[in-house]
Amino acid sequence: MGLYLKSKKLDLEGGKDLFVVLNRDDAEKLGLQDGDMAFLGYRDVEMYVKIIITDKKVREGEIGLYEELVDERFAPVNSKVFLDIPKPSKSLEAIRKKMEGGKLNEEELKSIMEDIGSRKLRETEVAFFVSTFFNPGFEEDEIYWMTKGMAHSGEVLDFKNIKNNRDMVVDKHSIGGTAGKGITPVLISILAANDLVCPNTSTRAITSPAGTSDILEVVMPVALNKEQVYEVVKKTGACLIWGGSLYLAPADDEIINVERSLRIQEFQKVLVSIVAKKLAMQVSHVLIDLPFGENTKLDRPDDLEFLEREFKELFAKVGIKCFTIKRQIRGPEGNGVGPALEIREAIRVLEQTENRSISLENTILDMAEILLENTDKAKKGEGRRLAKKTLESGLALQKFWEIATAQGQKKIIKSEEIEIGEFTHEIKSTKEGKITNINTRGIVDIARALGTPKIKKAGIYLNKGVDDKVSKDETIAILHSETKERLEQGIEVLDFDNTWTIS
Amino acid sequence: MGLYLKSKKLDLEGGKDLFVVLNRDDAEKLGLQDGDMAFLGYRDVEMYVKIIITDKKVREGEIGLYEELVDERFAPVNSKVFLDIPKPSKSLEAIRKKMEGGKLNEEELKSIMEDIGSRKLRETEVAFFVSTFFNPGFEEDEIYWMTKGMAHSGEVLDFKNIKNNRDMVVDKHSIGGTAGKGITPVLISILAANDLVCPNTSTRAITSPAGTSDILEVVMPVALNKEQVYEVVKKTGACLIWGGSLYLAPADDEIINVERSLRIQEFQKVLVSIVAKKLAMQVSHVLIDLPFGENTKLDRPDDLEFLEREFKELFAKVGIKCFTIKRQIRGPEGNGVGPALEIREAIRVLEQTENRSISLENTILDMAEILLENTDKAKKGEGRRLAKKTLESGLALQKFWEIATAQGQKKIIKSEEIEIGEFTHEIKSTKEGKITNINTRGIVDIARALGTPKIKKAGIYLNKGVDDKVSKDETIAILHSETKERLEQGIEVLDFDNTWTIS
Repeated sequence: MGLYLKSKKLDLEGGKDLFVVLNRDDAEKLGLQDGDMAFLGYRDVEMYVKIIITDKKVREGEIGLYEELVDERFAPVNSKVFLDIPKPSKSLEAIRKKMEGGKLNEEELKSIMEDIGSRKLRETEVAFFVSTFFNPGFEEDEIYWMTKGMAHSGEVLDFKNIKNNRDMVVDKHSIGGTAGKGITPVLISILAANDLVCPNTSTRAITSPAGTSDILEVVMPVALNKEQVYEVVKKTGACLIWGGSLYLAPADDEIINVERSLRIQEFQKVLVSIVAKKLAMQVSHVLIDLPFGENTKLDRPDDLEFLEREFKELFAKVGIKCFTIKRQIRGPEGNGVGPALEIREAIRVLEQTENRSISLENTILDMAEILLENTDKAKKGEGRRLAKKTLESGLALQKFWEIATAQGQKKIIKSEEIEIGEFTHEIKSTKEGKITNINTRGIVDIARALGTPKIKKAGIYLNKGVDDKVSKDETIAILHSETKERLEQGIEVLDFDNTWTIS
Repeated sequence: MGLYLKSKKLDLEGGKDLFVVLNRDDAEKLGLQDGDMAFLGYRDVEMYVKIIITDKKVREGEIGLYEELVDERFAPVNSKVFLDIPKPSKSLEAIRKKMEGGKLNEEELKSIMEDIGSRKLRETEVAFFVSTFFNPGFEEDEIYWMTKGMAHSGEVLDFKNIKNNRDMVVDKHSIGGTAGKGITPVLISILAANDLVCPNTSTRAITSPAGTSDILEVVMPVALNKEQVYEVVKKTGACLIWGGSLYLAPADDEIINVERSLRIQEFQKVLVSIVAKKLAMQVSHVLIDLPFGENTKLDRPDDLEFLEREFKELFAKVGIKCFTIKRQIRGPEGNGVGPALEIREAIRVLEQTENRSISLENTILDMAEILLENTDKAKKGEGRRLAKKTLESGLALQKFWEIATAQGQKKIIKSEEIEIGEFTHEIKSTKEGKITNINTRGIVDIARALGTPKIKKAGIYLNKGVDDKVSKDETIAILHSETKERLEQGIEVLDFDNTWTIS
């Protein structure tokens, strides 16, 4: 059963979709038709792919692989790969059961996580699974099993005792939903400068104009493999990497990919996703950032209390010490929104420039305080002062570039050298007064229309922040884009009165 | 905004997925990345497509279209097509709202149906919408709005007064879930032979080894366009066509495509789907077939009553007279399961051969009776006799081939000439006794493993049916397949004791 075929590279990229091109004769041998799923194997790697049939493009006995399959993921050209018709999937049975209101057991959730992680389920099937987070939802033990299953759907790393013979591994994670991701790069640099081991992994944007990975990528490589990550952490005590390239809880990345177009995440999903990643990194101490307020993910006080409790319980179950910080959001973190603009904000804080965002710096110091005091790096009441000193002395800035260099960055970039989209549009205040709120959702809509997070140089720079006074017709923000088309789209969705509250 | 590009044909088929291949320079102009969705327009046709980026395959200013886009759906080679970045979708907002438990209004459901029908939503987004049928489900007025929206997501046809100056348009539809689809071809032929206008549209298989369209396709073309259908019905009084090619409630076809891998349908979805199709065909009298019993879609008596009531109510709301027939299922309809085997069963009944399935014929007569008596073609109590006479006189057979010929079939095929897969495996009874039940689910699993519905010649022939006596080691069924691989898969999933009940 199945066929051995010789791999051939096609001059096509397939994005997130995995396609192979098959000669009609071979397709008929296997009884496969256009668009069918099939099972592709090379050595110990196996995955499900979609079939495209051709008469001439590849010959009988050959199989055409898209660039990514050849380059990154799978098999070199002219290797013998194996193709077969797919077997019925146990995971699909379990997804059906859940959609019909059933309860899943540990085995079923493990199998779903494995199959999603190894791409044995189609995107639509993953979407059906994701839908069950919304309805009917999962019980507490299902969430625990799913978390374990997700954590073990890929690599599990161990940074304990990698440096200084300490078994503490420290990290911070935000549930997101805010604009401005400048916190993590600065916070991790402060902690690592104080000798804490912080192997930070982040994600790309789902609901926001940029994820931490998106902004870091502007100034350093973030897609590292396991060996490279160990080396970076051994050398610098920390890393600032994209979790997706590490094959760390890969089920989560597949799920995030499917959720993307919805731009919503369900709380249980957020919970599982974060805890699974930290579990796969074997973190011992974690700070969970819970930004709340109108137009954030947590716009109801009940949700805030609920999620905080759920995090503490689930982290406790898997043996990780969890601290939380709850902070009300009235506008973006820092003055930049968009990958390049946001990393510039972070580096300005590290460089301690005059034009840095003081509110961003204060948020970072609040967090550093908690982690420094709970890991014996500072006595109760002294964490903040230590963090501030680490910034002012330049040690945090030095640590940041030490990490970036270890991750493969060739050049240290000053905050003012970061390139921003050259097509611009100034937003002027329609009245005089004080800005009391900047609506995250309004900002996010504009930034996404401008092309973020994919277009790194696009975004919004806020000349005026919350609590600033403005006069009528004063420029309070500037839209940046890389193309005229995208700039026009940004202007089109701009809704001044529902975004800026001036009174 | 947007680019005009020259269309080029690629030697690749993409199945149900719509892809275009774009030069990297053009992609960058629009800020599009690999795997992004974009908006493709040619004349008055617009659709959403996925982007594949190439350096060499197509040049700047060109766009590569897959064969189907060029051949069937869209634009000829060297035409000027328009490509742009997608606009934010109102339908997605509405789907999000529903997933979060909200209620949708008429406008939102109309927009979702339109966008699904015109492929403006991605498959994963359609999957999220489908999931909301399971949870949280829809209220009665939402179902009504969705039905209207779905019916108007494509063409609306009108067969009233097309023949004999009568405004009756008659049809039959089964909710499915049984094996054996021989009923419709025979029933419609009997009704049309009695001068009823019956423009029958059917679907391809979702949960069964063959849909009515799949079996008809073995002996006649079923993918007709609107003008062809009008002509066929004008000429013969009926048609037996695949609804999908008619652009009739196209939203339904997209939804069915996404549901396929789940192999389940939710009742509300079944309801909307059937009523919308009949509404788009402006049917006046419809018979809804409700097969029930263990391992059918209706395995709980409550469901049967619920669905019958829902059908009557929704059909009444949209102004269609609805009759129902409830019948208990103990095995497949007729002796064949699989496209070729099932159409052979139907033609055997039309030909009135000795080896025809009498139980299949009886089911057909039961249905013909209801429709002939409720359309004044026969007096109360005389419908069955009239139907029987139509079969015995050969008029129904004649009408069947009249329809097939009008639909473009060149050759009349005798039942015994129909080709069946040549790789075979005999199933022998493990004991002596009487067959009291043949489990539809067991049969379906085998048939699908053999390659049905895509492989037309594959399937199972039941030498012995329900109520037949068998001796130990007697051949009671034969598996047919077109390839050795598929036959082996069929044998692998075969579970004799859970499929045949012999006592």
